[in-house]
Amino acid sequence: MLEEFEFNFKVVAEDEKTGARAGVLATPHGTIDTPVFMPVGTKATVKTMTPEELEEIGAEIILGNAYHLFLRPGDELIAAAGGLHSFMNWPKPLLTDSGGFQIFSLSPVVSVSDEAVEFRSIIDGSLHTFTPEIAIKVQENLGADIIMPLDHPLGYQATETEVKEAVSRTTAWAQRCKEAHKRRDQWLFGIIQGGMVPELRQESLRQILDIGFPGYAIGGLSVGEPHSQMYETIDSFIGDMPTDKPRYLMGVGRADNLLEAIGLGVDMFDCALPTRVARNGLAFTWAGKVNIRNNRYRNEFVPLDPDCQCYTCLNYSRAYIRHLLSANEILALRLLTWHNLFFTINIVKKARASILNNEFLRFKNSFTAFQGSGAPLG
Amino acid sequence: MLEEFEFNFKVVAEDEKTGARAGVLATPHGTIDTPVFMPVGTKATVKTMTPEELEEIGAEIILGNAYHLFLRPGDELIAAAGGLHSFMNWPKPLLTDSGGFQIFSLSPVVSVSDEAVEFRSIIDGSLHTFTPEIAIKVQENLGADIIMPLDHPLGYQATETEVKEAVSRTTAWAQRCKEAHKRRDQWLFGIIQGGMVPELRQESLRQILDIGFPGYAIGGLSVGEPHSQMYETIDSFIGDMPTDKPRYLMGVGRADNLLEAIGLGVDMFDCALPTRVARNGLAFTWAGKVNIRNNRYRNEFVPLDPDCQCYTCLNYSRAYIRHLLSANEILALRLLTWHNLFFTINIVKKARASILNNEFLRFKNSFTAFQGSGAPLG
Repeated sequence: MLEEFEFNFKVVAEDEKTGARAGVLATPHGTIDTPVFMPVGTKATVKTMTPEELEEIGAEIILGNAYHLFLRPGDELIAAAGGLHSFMNWPKPLLTDSGGFQIFSLSPVVSVSDEAVEFRSIIDGSLHTFTPEIAIKVQENLGADIIMPLDHPLGYQATETEVKEAVSRTTAWAQRCKEAHKRRDQWLFGIIQGGMVPELRQESLRQILDIGFPGYAIGGLSVGEPHSQMYETIDSFIGDMPTDKPRYLMGVGRADNLLEAIGLGVDMFDCALPTRVARNGLAFTWAGKVNIRNNRYRNEFVPLDPDCQCYTCLNYSRAYIRHLLSANEILALRLLTWHNLFFTINIVKKARASILNNEFLRFKNSFTAFQGSGAPLG
Repeated sequence: MLEEFEFNFKVVAEDEKTGARAGVLATPHGTIDTPVFMPVGTKATVKTMTPEELEEIGAEIILGNAYHLFLRPGDELIAAAGGLHSFMNWPKPLLTDSGGFQIFSLSPVVSVSDEAVEFRSIIDGSLHTFTPEIAIKVQENLGADIIMPLDHPLGYQATETEVKEAVSRTTAWAQRCKEAHKRRDQWLFGIIQGGMVPELRQESLRQILDIGFPGYAIGGLSVGEPHSQMYETIDSFIGDMPTDKPRYLMGVGRADNLLEAIGLGVDMFDCALPTRVARNGLAFTWAGKVNIRNNRYRNEFVPLDPDCQCYTCLNYSRAYIRHLLSANEILALRLLTWHNLFFTINIVKKARASILNNEFLRFKNSFTAFQGSGAPLG
């Protein structure tokens, strides 16, 4: 039945030396080459950017946050606008998360039971209730191509008992989300939880696979654990995930993490990191980080990254961007965001090209070597 | 001598019923059709905009502020970058003011004499001295096509004695600026002061004309006086200004003021108003002002101005822009700035077209009627 809405995922190449794979994911709003990095457009805008700029940078799919959009301007208002695509003027694929992560990480949670979670708005403190059914209804109103079930993510400090409870709640909620979801022009993914405990990850995976989804997300990672532990956790169960379904690692966007996870077989990523640090003056480059606030860049009339082909690097100097940031000029935030998104999206695009050429490992190693090569750290 | 740098001004049409005229102003960085509105790029950026966007909107010349750029990042750093055009990546004509207006309106002034003005930086309170010679040196470092002499503008509350003293100081400084100015790829304009006193305006005009400049600015207006008084003051001496030199009214940018002043024979305008109010949520439209924060626009899925052909109006709804502004999203400021600059620049372009067709008065009257026609005021 789904085929009539043009949903499809196909692995087109597998790396011989790692788990990396290249795929194509078709959605009603267009086709995505995987692996893919998805810029985060929390409140119906990828901060500082227009849709045309995102397309120019090479973004193929972006993210919206159900939590924020539910609170403001409200999912029903967005439905009245014709959905999130139309509201924000983004014609390409969209993914929304369920709100679970924000409820449990941003909001004061008043109560949580298997039935529902009650929380207070970070905007005005008002009380709201989310159930799996409400999370689906909100996301049906938003109308993204790919949507997520309500889950119960935990921080890195959670005890095994808490993780166990969150796993079974996540499973129960996933089942209810699947039953509640009616729009056939949306793909509802499953989310695997289980903290850093391999047995609970396996348990969560089995239960979510039993329910059955067209794609699977890995939640509850990148929450403060050492990177090595994140990689080990993924490695402990990714081999048991279906090879013919997309795999989405939530909340990861640092270039080295992306490349490691691609090597483990992950297809999709999202993260606010590249855009958030940009607004603080931090630029990612092939040679390392540039903290443009540093006085050393005051009269450097060279691009952020001399090897970069982005709009920012082709047109502006470090000295100019530093001046703009010092003067609190919005253009600074635009130029840094543009560069960091271009950098992150293109790392992943280059990784994909290297998979197709069976050179992924060489690419990953050369990136790592280059990053450590002693380029000026801000 | 100036001709070798391609400076030239020619009036190409004069309206029969008013003083309005259309001209062409050639500079080393390109040709400007007058009347022209110049967006203000205070700190080496027109707030929120890229140079490409300014070109798309139709900006032909933009302004930089010597005061701000002298303080940060410093005119010598900009000279090292190859000048302001190169530093900010704007290839078209540029005008800088002398710093006089900002010193006397923004900075704590420590002392002012015929020799120099001492003031404190608004950034860090540090003490600085400006002389006519320094104002020219700073502007030679910045390298704009058109530069301004140091003058002594006053507020609306100034006494006649104060105005008289400021007029003679402005004249003395203009003479010294002309002597100090060496770059032949820049045009140095004169500035006429004299407050709201017709006799002092005449005196200032005669003195500045005696020194002789390739263009003349009208300073010290739009400082809080009623609009009728501004028009009367301009009208009292503009007939005595040379017809073959450009006339620049400083600090005016509201559409009705622009059209009245064009009718009196003014050729050039600058003002931060359209960009500043945009960042507060105010949009200018053919039917009147739209304060997008107003709750009435919450679910209006129509453009800011249904008749407008700008990027913002072609792609986004009032409801979306209102949401972005409520959520403190930078894209809101971009979209509103884009619209207001497009609106203001195009009012002036349409005025020019109407002068060429001998329909200026009809255009001006129809604009006025439309503005009053009861479009929803925010």
